[in-house]
Amino acid sequence: MRTFLDCYPCFLNQALRAGRLATDDETQIKRLLDEVGGMLKTIPIESSPAETGRLIYRKVSEITANPDPYRQVKERNIHKALGLYPGLKKIVAQSDDPLLTALRIAIAGNVIDLGAPGEFDIEKEIEDVLEKPFAISDYKIFKDHLQHARSVLYLADNAAECVFDRILIEEMKKPVTFVVRERPVINDATREDALKAGLGELSTVVSSGTDAPGTVLETCCREFKELFYRSEFIISKGQGNYEALSGQQRPIFFMLKAKCSVVAADLGVAVGDIILKDINA
Amino acid sequence: MRTFLDCYPCFLNQALRAGRLATDDETQIKRLLDEVGGMLKTIPIESSPAETGRLIYRKVSEITANPDPYRQVKERNIHKALGLYPGLKKIVAQSDDPLLTALRIAIAGNVIDLGAPGEFDIEKEIEDVLEKPFAISDYKIFKDHLQHARSVLYLADNAAECVFDRILIEEMKKPVTFVVRERPVINDATREDALKAGLGELSTVVSSGTDAPGTVLETCCREFKELFYRSEFIISKGQGNYEALSGQQRPIFFMLKAKCSVVAADLGVAVGDIILKDINA
Repeated sequence: MRTFLDCYPCFLNQALRAGRLATDDETQIKRLLDEVGGMLKTIPIESSPAETGRLIYRKVSEITANPDPYRQVKERNIHKALGLYPGLKKIVAQSDDPLLTALRIAIAGNVIDLGAPGEFDIEKEIEDVLEKPFAISDYKIFKDHLQHARSVLYLADNAAECVFDRILIEEMKKPVTFVVRERPVINDATREDALKAGLGELSTVVSSGTDAPGTVLETCCREFKELFYRSEFIISKGQGNYEALSGQQRPIFFMLKAKCSVVAADLGVAVGDIILKDINA
Repeated sequence: MRTFLDCYPCFLNQALRAGRLATDDETQIKRLLDEVGGMLKTIPIESSPAETGRLIYRKVSEITANPDPYRQVKERNIHKALGLYPGLKKIVAQSDDPLLTALRIAIAGNVIDLGAPGEFDIEKEIEDVLEKPFAISDYKIFKDHLQHARSVLYLADNAAECVFDRILIEEMKKPVTFVVRERPVINDATREDALKAGLGELSTVVSSGTDAPGTVLETCCREFKELFYRSEFIISKGQGNYEALSGQQRPIFFMLKAKCSVVAADLGVAVGDIILKDINA
C-alpha cells in the first residue's frame, strides 16, 4: 500500500505518542517532532507507511536513547491476554465452527495496536468481533487452501495479539512458522514476546529480520525472504503487514481490523471493519 | 497560550485540511505538507499556536495559489446561520435571562470552526449549549462590567459565528466595535463576512490588521492596537483569540467552546466545555 496524504500528519502523531512513552523530556520530544517533520519531504508517496514507520521509530529510539518504549505496555498486555486465554479456548470449543471462531478471536487481538489512533477495550472487542459480520470474507477459500497446505507461514503483528494467534494456530492443526520482528518497534511482537505468549511450544518462531512495523521485504533478512517466497500458505496479521505486502504476488491471507481511515479506504471498507482477504481473490 | 507538543501534528493536519479545500492537486498538497513539516523546527514552544496558524495558512495560499480556500464554506455557513436567526431571537425574547441566553447562543456559534478537529451540527449545538452548564462562568462579573462599560470591543472569530454574535450584541445594548481579520484565514470573519452577517447596521466593523487566525498583537495594525489598549471592556471569541491573548493584562472576557485538548487543558476544562472567563478572575 502506498502512502496517502493523511499518513503524513499521522507520522507526527505516532512520533509524539512513542516519544511520550520513551521519555518525559519535552525538549527531546520537541526535537523528535522537528526531525520527523523535516523527514516528511523525503518520504515518497509510493513508499509504504510501514517503511516510514521503521524510520520514525528508529528516530524515537535514537533521540530518546530508549530502544523499547513500549516494553512495559507489551508485558502488561501479554499478561492480560494470557488471563483471557482459558475462557477463549472454551468459547472456541463450544462453537459450531471452531476454526472460524478462532479466526475471529485472532482478529480481535489485532485491536491491541498502539501505533494506530484510538483506545481499545480487549474484552469488549472480543465480544464485538465474535458477532460482527466480515466486510471482506474469503473464509471458504481460506479453509480450502488450509486443508491442502503442508505448512503455514504466520506473520505476527502485535505482542499480546500472539496469545490470540495461538488459539487460531491450535485450531489450524498444521505446522506453523511464526514470524516476529527482529527488534522492538511500537508494540509489535519480537521473539521474546512470542515466547512469553506461549508460541514456542506450538510453532517455530523465527525473525523476519526487520525492525519495521510491518514485513517490509527490503528490510528483511535473506533467510526469511527465502521462506516467504517458498511458502504456499501465508497468514498476514494486522495493518503494518498489510501495508508492506498488499502489492505482493504470493498466496497471502490478510487478517485485520481496519483501524485507520487510510487502510480502510485502501481495502474499500469502513474504519472498524474486520476482514479476511485472499490477496488473489 | 504557548504551543504544546500536541499542536505540532495538528499543524500538519490543519495544512492538510486547508490544502484539500484549496486544491485537488495532490502534488501541491504533498509539497505543502513537506514545507509545513520542515517549518516545525522553527516554531518555538513559547509562541502561540495562532501565530503559527498564520504562517501555515499563508503557506497554503502561496503553494495552492488560492487566497481563500474557505470562501464557499463560509458563504454557505453564513447563509445557514441567517436562516436560524429569527428562531434564535424568539428563544432569547422568551427566556428568563435574555442576556445570558444570547451569550450562550454566541458561544454555540463558536462551534463553526473549521481549523479545529471534528464535525459539527449547528442546530444540535445550539440546543446543547442552551442547556449545558458552564465549566467556567464569570457571568456575574461580566454583567456588572458590562453595565458600567461605555462601549465594547468585540473580537470576532469565525464568519458564520458573527450572526450569533449579532444576537448577543443586540442584547448588550452598548456601542460595539466589531473586530475582524484583515485577510481571509481559515473560516475566520473578514469585513465582508461581518457585513453579510448583518453587523454593519449594528456596530462599527474594523479590521485588526492581522491575517493570523487569532488576534496576535504583533501582527495587528497600529490603529487596532491603540483601540485594544484603550478599551475598558473586551469580548474575545473563540480559541484563536484565546491562544493569542490569554497572557495579556487587559479587561478581556473569553467566550468559547474548548474544541481541542490543548486549549481545554490550558483552561483546566474538558474538551466540549463552554466557558465565559474573565481574564482577571
